Amino acid sequence: MSTADHPAIEVIAFDADDTLWHNESLFTVTQTKFKQLLAGYHSDEWIEAKLNETEHRNIQHFGYGIKGFTLSMIETAIELTEGRISGAQIQQIIDYAKAMRQAPVELLDGVAETISALAGQYTLMLITKGDLFDQESKIARSGLGDHFNHLEIVSEKNTAVYRTIMSKHRLDPQRFLMIGNSIKSDILPVIEVGGRAVHVPYHTTWVHEQVSDYDAASFYEIASLRELPALLTKMS
Amino acid sequence: MSTADHPAIEVIAFDADDTLWHNESLFTVTQTKFKQLLAGYHSDEWIEAKLNETEHRNIQHFGYGIKGFTLSMIETAIELTEGRISGAQIQQIIDYAKAMRQAPVELLDGVAETISALAGQYTLMLITKGDLFDQESKIARSGLGDHFNHLEIVSEKNTAVYRTIMSKHRLDPQRFLMIGNSIKSDILPVIEVGGRAVHVPYHTTWVHEQVSDYDAASFYEIASLRELPALLTKMS
Repeated sequence: MSTADHPAIEVIAFDADDTLWHNESLFTVTQTKFKQLLAGYHSDEWIEAKLNETEHRNIQHFGYGIKGFTLSMIETAIELTEGRISGAQIQQIIDYAKAMRQAPVELLDGVAETISALAGQYTLMLITKGDLFDQESKIARSGLGDHFNHLEIVSEKNTAVYRTIMSKHRLDPQRFLMIGNSIKSDILPVIEVGGRAVHVPYHTTWVHEQVSDYDAASFYEIASLRELPALLTKMS
Repeated sequence: MSTADHPAIEVIAFDADDTLWHNESLFTVTQTKFKQLLAGYHSDEWIEAKLNETEHRNIQHFGYGIKGFTLSMIETAIELTEGRISGAQIQQIIDYAKAMRQAPVELLDGVAETISALAGQYTLMLITKGDLFDQESKIARSGLGDHFNHLEIVSEKNTAVYRTIMSKHRLDPQRFLMIGNSIKSDILPVIEVGGRAVHVPYHTTWVHEQVSDYDAASFYEIASLRELPALLTKMS
């Protein structure tokens, strides 16, 4: 994307999960444990396919986050074992959820330095999707909370939600830059409402966040948050 | 409480669950079904006591809301049946959760008229605790969303949270009035930060919201939201 002919960026908003800290890897690790738990019944591939299907169906009921994921694991386990799963095994699944909640928040490479360097120069926002309770806890444990002028925890990230956030904080979309790992949630809707966006790919993308039909020339891409200050200099 | 010697109220904030619409009754109905499900194993009293214990222990892991309640029901069922609960019965518990999510939002008596009457005269806020996903859905389905200038969905209601909300919206605590059914969450912390509060008791109070040690003279009490406009006139 060309960097010319744009007003200077004033507000930088960051996605949190898999942009500032590892998250999907925690779900992947739990999914591996879940497949081991059901290994006597089905193949890994089948378990994974069925779990994805249950999660997808349950988003309307349970939204995003650890608790919804856990309820979907339990439902999948019951279905795949035709009800033969034991109480002790279901308790194990609930215990996975508690372990996920307590897992340390591991910042991605370069995040701490970049965020604290930018904090004085720009208005920083955090715009994250998911469970309020999980997200607040992670923000607190990340140690980054104080660097952000505004925190927005939302249940979906679409054009309507970005428009609401921009109007609430009286933001000029042209001076707004969103940074995130999800093309579907962090990049495309922001561009659609007139903002700019930087994609920082994470090594895995949750299957429900995958998209393929987009114009890669409409946004920036960097390999690590470390590269953001240099990109901002180029943009200004 | 005396109404004299106070600046006029400018901002009225409402709790949502059991203040604007029925909520606890939905949990009570589900709890009754849960007790029936386990009736072959234990007495109602014992099941209820154990469920309360599990919920209390799990708030740190799962917060407030339908999903956390459901995980606590499953955990309690496993414990109380010593693992003998069947997969089909656990699926029934998950189905209770889905039914709760889809239950219609039933406004309490006088709410619709009162909120729409006050909307032009005061800045109205909604300050509600719980699961973001559940609460957003209920606000949307209540039909009241447009009357509120600000929505705050928080994971706890304590003095720190009320202070943050007040400073964020630059509110003068003396001109701030909170309305709610929970003395612990809606009344006492607001008074502590210098605001005023009106208690509207709901017919049942969740056991984790019950308090007994407070000064009833420090806040107002009305039987229904219908009485709020008259109280406001008296206060001004």
